[in-house]
Amino acid sequence: MMRQVFVAGTGSTRFGKHPQTPIEALAVDAGAQALVQSGIARDRIGAVYLGNFISGPLNGKEVLAGLVAEQLGLSGIPCTKVEGACASGGIAFRHACLMVATGVCDAVLVVGVETMTHASTTDMTTALNCAMDNEYDGMSGLTFPGLFGLAWRSHARQYGTTREDIAAVVIKNKAHGLKNPLAQMGADLSLDQVCASAMIADPLQLFDCCPPSDGAAAVVVCAKDMLGDAQHQALIRVMASAQTSGSARVSQHPDLCTFEATVAAAQQAYQQSGLKPSNIDLVELHDCFSIAEIIDSEDLGLVPRGEGGRWAAQGRTGMQGDIVINPSGGLLAKGHPVGATGVGQIVEVVLQLRGEHSNPVKDASIGMTHNLGGTGVACTVHILGREA
Amino acid sequence: MMRQVFVAGTGSTRFGKHPQTPIEALAVDAGAQALVQSGIARDRIGAVYLGNFISGPLNGKEVLAGLVAEQLGLSGIPCTKVEGACASGGIAFRHACLMVATGVCDAVLVVGVETMTHASTTDMTTALNCAMDNEYDGMSGLTFPGLFGLAWRSHARQYGTTREDIAAVVIKNKAHGLKNPLAQMGADLSLDQVCASAMIADPLQLFDCCPPSDGAAAVVVCAKDMLGDAQHQALIRVMASAQTSGSARVSQHPDLCTFEATVAAAQQAYQQSGLKPSNIDLVELHDCFSIAEIIDSEDLGLVPRGEGGRWAAQGRTGMQGDIVINPSGGLLAKGHPVGATGVGQIVEVVLQLRGEHSNPVKDASIGMTHNLGGTGVACTVHILGREA
Repeated sequence: MMRQVFVAGTGSTRFGKHPQTPIEALAVDAGAQALVQSGIARDRIGAVYLGNFISGPLNGKEVLAGLVAEQLGLSGIPCTKVEGACASGGIAFRHACLMVATGVCDAVLVVGVETMTHASTTDMTTALNCAMDNEYDGMSGLTFPGLFGLAWRSHARQYGTTREDIAAVVIKNKAHGLKNPLAQMGADLSLDQVCASAMIADPLQLFDCCPPSDGAAAVVVCAKDMLGDAQHQALIRVMASAQTSGSARVSQHPDLCTFEATVAAAQQAYQQSGLKPSNIDLVELHDCFSIAEIIDSEDLGLVPRGEGGRWAAQGRTGMQGDIVINPSGGLLAKGHPVGATGVGQIVEVVLQLRGEHSNPVKDASIGMTHNLGGTGVACTVHILGREA
Repeated sequence: MMRQVFVAGTGSTRFGKHPQTPIEALAVDAGAQALVQSGIARDRIGAVYLGNFISGPLNGKEVLAGLVAEQLGLSGIPCTKVEGACASGGIAFRHACLMVATGVCDAVLVVGVETMTHASTTDMTTALNCAMDNEYDGMSGLTFPGLFGLAWRSHARQYGTTREDIAAVVIKNKAHGLKNPLAQMGADLSLDQVCASAMIADPLQLFDCCPPSDGAAAVVVCAKDMLGDAQHQALIRVMASAQTSGSARVSQHPDLCTFEATVAAAQQAYQQSGLKPSNIDLVELHDCFSIAEIIDSEDLGLVPRGEGGRWAAQGRTGMQGDIVINPSGGLLAKGHPVGATGVGQIVEVVLQLRGEHSNPVKDASIGMTHNLGGTGVACTVHILGREA
């Protein structure tokens, strides 16, 4: 019998450019906020999980879990870095939830962190490609913009999705980002501006791509009896936590318009929570590229298969839509400090459910997060709900 | 109430030089051995944990957990890479045990893997230093041989430990390595040969240092009801699994003759198992340098404080000694493919307890492993026992 898991505190740096700040300083900033907000004494924290992807190649720094815990005044407890490419943060959050749910710990700190903007474009591209099966796909010269460019072409061919449909995702998320003080690059964009931006990997243009980012996010999760007086009145419970894997080889994907790891994780999350897609008020999903939001929205069952582009163009995924997607601005506008993203999504949903978000979704009581790694090799889906 | 956890299968490559072999191929080799030996069908494996430290910097490859799982025919399940410097393998094994003990999974595959020998000495030293707090200790120019050279001087000053005492560790472990077909560099060494080897970081000489290594090790752990007919008659149970953390900053260590993370992990492991040091028949401990074996043996409570050097010199840690330390040859002779080491220690102890080891400890029924990361920033201690 698993215990219920609650979010006791959250913290985040602004996502953006912090090239002068050591990676551990960002992590400590977010972690300290979450600890203080939780009202849970440091000696009650039973473990630390830290999500990070490429601090080794880009910073020459590892063992960040223990190193950050020490600077936060957490000493002696198990501190574990987990990695699953862009899903590292979601995997860290899931492990924290598991430790509480199973009774191994009563409270756990989760931190996600990445720094990228200090690196050259070449170094960054090389590091990001660590998320591929380079022995197999490497010789093709494929990068992630290349992969999602192929996915776009495939979606356009199969479902008739257009440049204008996909631009609607960009315009929506950039506008959301303008309202989010944690976001790196919100903007008020026109269709013409999106279509005039530089070509990156045909047909993907500049505004279709998330930026390189630095940042950290943190969450304290705990068992119900650890929620003290310092707590927010809105109890935020983790209703589902799913982690799956898929192929690391693009050549093994039978259909580039879907990621099987997302489909499986969503199914598990709905089953765990007893909820259906129509119960979800908002989702923070993994829009590393504009086309990814369309694919993800379909894979999560929130939008009918093949309709993702049209729903975006019709405003059905906007603030007043059938399902609100990425009110934070998503990776496209909030930014994508890789290891931090999955934890940052949790922070965003918690702020929404508490009614504390700067771009609020009306009457939101149930939110979902979706964090996807590499070519779909790793995925997490979480569902959080506000309790009375 | 936690479930009992058993080792169902083990696998390992030889530790040594495999510079032409992709890191994932080594991991798949060891993982496939463990899966086959376990007799557990692939669709019963609930998760994969992979321990690795520096594949990002040295190979440009991450997401190894999902990538290796795919090549092993394990698909869709949660696949997580964990990292805690040199303790990465032990942390992976602990997480697999936790998943089974808590009922989250019935069987889990653990793989530890590293490749290093293809890299230049400079690249390797830089990568290994990812395990330090470079913002603080980096400016001192300290490397790991430097740290353990300091520890040696401290132990010599406090406890009168001599070059000859420490050489006894080297001579013992290199001799053990000669008998171990998985070992990289066993040798029949004289005291004169040890003392004549090149100076690395005064007073540490060449034979006091473990070599750079490539290799992989794997274990399948499971609940008791998953142990089928294909199983070895000797049931190997995980009696304790502890993970701790300590300071990442050398300047914060009050005493270089002890690692607090080891002391705490050992205490927890004894408490979990209800055992005392005198119950341990053999230990595979983290002798990254000869002096480390002496410190570790004291920190684990297996040798009286300050007596580690003399016990080694008197043969009390040898095959006929009071406590048998590193019958595999340890890191000094078996090698130290960093992320693989903690899992390889488990494999060695399991072989001993099954009576299948090439350098057998007589009547061994209880064995311990000790895996230490960085400056003592991460540590795991496990105790395994043979059941009737």
